[in-house]
Amino acid sequence: MEKVRRVERMVALTKLLVDSPQELISLRYFCEFFDIAKSTLSEDLSSVKASLQHFSLGTIETVAGVAGGVRFIPYRQGERAFAVLKEVQQRLQEPDRVIPGGFLYMSDILYDWHITSRLGEIFMTRFAERQPDYIMTVETKGIPLAVMVARAFNKPLVIARRDSKVTEGSSISINYVTGSSRRIQTMSLTKRAIPPKSKVLLIDDFMKAGGTANGMKELVTEMGGTVVGTGVLVATATPGPKVVGDYEALLVLNGVDEVTRTVDIEPVYCKPDEEA
Amino acid sequence: MEKVRRVERMVALTKLLVDSPQELISLRYFCEFFDIAKSTLSEDLSSVKASLQHFSLGTIETVAGVAGGVRFIPYRQGERAFAVLKEVQQRLQEPDRVIPGGFLYMSDILYDWHITSRLGEIFMTRFAERQPDYIMTVETKGIPLAVMVARAFNKPLVIARRDSKVTEGSSISINYVTGSSRRIQTMSLTKRAIPPKSKVLLIDDFMKAGGTANGMKELVTEMGGTVVGTGVLVATATPGPKVVGDYEALLVLNGVDEVTRTVDIEPVYCKPDEEA
Repeated sequence: MEKVRRVERMVALTKLLVDSPQELISLRYFCEFFDIAKSTLSEDLSSVKASLQHFSLGTIETVAGVAGGVRFIPYRQGERAFAVLKEVQQRLQEPDRVIPGGFLYMSDILYDWHITSRLGEIFMTRFAERQPDYIMTVETKGIPLAVMVARAFNKPLVIARRDSKVTEGSSISINYVTGSSRRIQTMSLTKRAIPPKSKVLLIDDFMKAGGTANGMKELVTEMGGTVVGTGVLVATATPGPKVVGDYEALLVLNGVDEVTRTVDIEPVYCKPDEEA
Repeated sequence: MEKVRRVERMVALTKLLVDSPQELISLRYFCEFFDIAKSTLSEDLSSVKASLQHFSLGTIETVAGVAGGVRFIPYRQGERAFAVLKEVQQRLQEPDRVIPGGFLYMSDILYDWHITSRLGEIFMTRFAERQPDYIMTVETKGIPLAVMVARAFNKPLVIARRDSKVTEGSSISINYVTGSSRRIQTMSLTKRAIPPKSKVLLIDDFMKAGGTANGMKELVTEMGGTVVGTGVLVATATPGPKVVGDYEALLVLNGVDEVTRTVDIEPVYCKPDEEA
């Protein structure tokens, strides 16, 4: 490949790194792709890193050694995270979202990839230390959010089903009691989904009493894995203690008033930006 | 904001454009963000465009006028598309994917965002001329793929349910006959999902006789919209004509042999790269 100007190389380098968050790409791959020396690549990477950090757009991490390389980590914290949650709060407060029964219509936000890709980065930043091997959710509404969390972590996604499907082979099923409506439900997962001893991060869109998250936890335990964290977009303020012990919510729903059509919801404070 | 070097600006510019495919961003936004003149920004954008095209990583489109701006379009065609389909083919041919009953285990590939994000770009490239307003799928396995198609198009995603949910408000339900097993099933969609006269692109992971796609089509028609295209990842070779007339498959499954555990599947030829 003919030599290109430095700016053009930087553009392509940025595109390739940003397109595959968390993926370790070897220095040799880039050297061959651009036909440049390692020293030149190192200079380029420092510039990319400096620029991303300057504009708080994430960072580049270098792993030394034979199996080493570089990867882009899309950290989103502090003001850049809080602004996203404020936007979700504002949209959820729109009066026409209140559905008979005191429910809140959230699907359009949950299916909006602009929002979910940013929420995915926020969840990744919050749970980065737990180092999950898999991201798990249960069908249906939480799936797009979980897809984006899996993308930000660069880890495989696993989806538990409400029934077992013949097209997925043998599966493990559990029964669980939904914490709020006290109904017995079934949840199943194909045996191929999670190898034993896996560390699993649970992601869901909504938590009331925590029964569903608890069901997912049981399913993971049945398969010999460990739940290292539970993240939900919205949790209700009451009941206070949830069946599932440890969880983290990005927004807390204090209440929905069907008569006045007001929604009392607030984002949870984001830790300040330590990277910047 | 203090002035930064050109290369650093280019990195941030690339990141911001690539992160929001198809989103029209005003030139003024970038001028203010970087504190630069419009002429400088135009030069920067030409370089970004030249570089992306040089490495076949997509292109930048400029829309003139007051409501104008620039956007990144993640076209993926020709060899860059075919290589992705070849990879999917190879993975689907692994012998341990054959499930009793002659089914093919596909979930891990369908939930792998590396694959689905690239497939999303391929579908976008193929259906770009149809200009859909919404991307629609039915739960569950096709959702991550549809999320990525919606991302590549920068259009909202709509998910039809197998049952109607109280938390989504009033909905329209239809009954349809699955083309292959001849069973009657229900599919429903909340009335809020699609405004009348919308142009809808259907996306699903698998098509046998086309009954499910036909069901989605009926649902869209019920809501006053039009289906402008149907894209599936894998379609079976038999039955030949599908209930739904016009569709496009990325791979064709000729057959699964349960005894020898061989999977006969092939990618559909990709049009050569006209952009490059």
